[in-house]
Amino acid sequence: MAKFSAGPEIERLIQLLARLPGLGPRSARRAALHLVKKREQLLGPLSEAMQVAHERIVVCSTCGNIDTSDPCSVCRDPRRDDSIIVVVADVADLWALERSAAINARYHVLGGVLSAMDGVRPENLAIDSLVARAAGPSVKELILALNATVDGATTAHYITDRVAHLPVKVTRLAHGVPVGGELDYLDDGTLSAAIRQRTGF
Amino acid sequence: MAKFSAGPEIERLIQLLARLPGLGPRSARRAALHLVKKREQLLGPLSEAMQVAHERIVVCSTCGNIDTSDPCSVCRDPRRDDSIIVVVADVADLWALERSAAINARYHVLGGVLSAMDGVRPENLAIDSLVARAAGPSVKELILALNATVDGATTAHYITDRVAHLPVKVTRLAHGVPVGGELDYLDDGTLSAAIRQRTGF
Repeated sequence: MAKFSAGPEIERLIQLLARLPGLGPRSARRAALHLVKKREQLLGPLSEAMQVAHERIVVCSTCGNIDTSDPCSVCRDPRRDDSIIVVVADVADLWALERSAAINARYHVLGGVLSAMDGVRPENLAIDSLVARAAGPSVKELILALNATVDGATTAHYITDRVAHLPVKVTRLAHGVPVGGELDYLDDGTLSAAIRQRTGF
Repeated sequence: MAKFSAGPEIERLIQLLARLPGLGPRSARRAALHLVKKREQLLGPLSEAMQVAHERIVVCSTCGNIDTSDPCSVCRDPRRDDSIIVVVADVADLWALERSAAINARYHVLGGVLSAMDGVRPENLAIDSLVARAAGPSVKELILALNATVDGATTAHYITDRVAHLPVKVTRLAHGVPVGGELDYLDDGTLSAAIRQRTGF
């Protein structure tokens, strides 16, 4: 008996859904079935939303953000502090910072971090364009909002070297206890950093 | 500062993706970002596959399967055994049985199981049409391939009553140890069923 197939149209949908992060082959099948069952409420609207996204979404040529306009809405916003550029690895990090409303400045998306393991070299990242922006007259500070991993630290050191000749201050995010975090679940490195950088109460 | 939004187009995509089973709000955001990054390789093809599915997929009026034709390919297949109807709750169960290639017969999708909790009554399921099919001259057996839950068992009993006047045999799937399963992870009910229904070695 031939391998069962639910028809080429559904199989193709399942295959493509399985390439989304967070969906394996099994959950992609469940998702496809759900879509087909909710034809009018979900399949139609989602298909349309994807088409709109496909047609209208572009990468900002200034900062690397994703938006429907270039420059993006963050780069165009006149109320933001031009003197600070927050450097992130990924658009998801930019979104996370914007959701937190922690800072109202500009961004620069590197498109990843340096990695000897994955063969990511400086020319694969948006570092030249960052150095060019950092040389602008209004820029006073680069905040390196990179993951606290070896690759993140390597990338931070590399960027610091590359802008050493410029009159900009380079800072990084504080290490410490996450808000809501429990001490006995934290690793030693975070705990020692939190002790070293303790503040007045 | 206003709540951050990544633009109405992306927000809509995220919202719709979050309604897929297996994707929460956080993973939907990650999936949307992944889609936008893989514009040509994934967003475009997936948008197209959904449109094709939306336009062409229909529910089989005979058995309730999902296909691009009505009757579906299973109902049209002349090499299948007309004397057996495998009764399943959901299209996903039909697919699972077809993948296992366990039987080459006809199917009937109920569209759920009876449930006092969820207010699912016989008239909400495709039971009348099942009884009508079971009354056909070629049908000799109904295999009730329903989940081994209280609702599944209730539904099985109800169907058995409804076809009691017909000359069809009603069977159900065997209970026992799953192939590859480890005994000490199994519940008592499965273990006693497996002992009671032991077979020669």
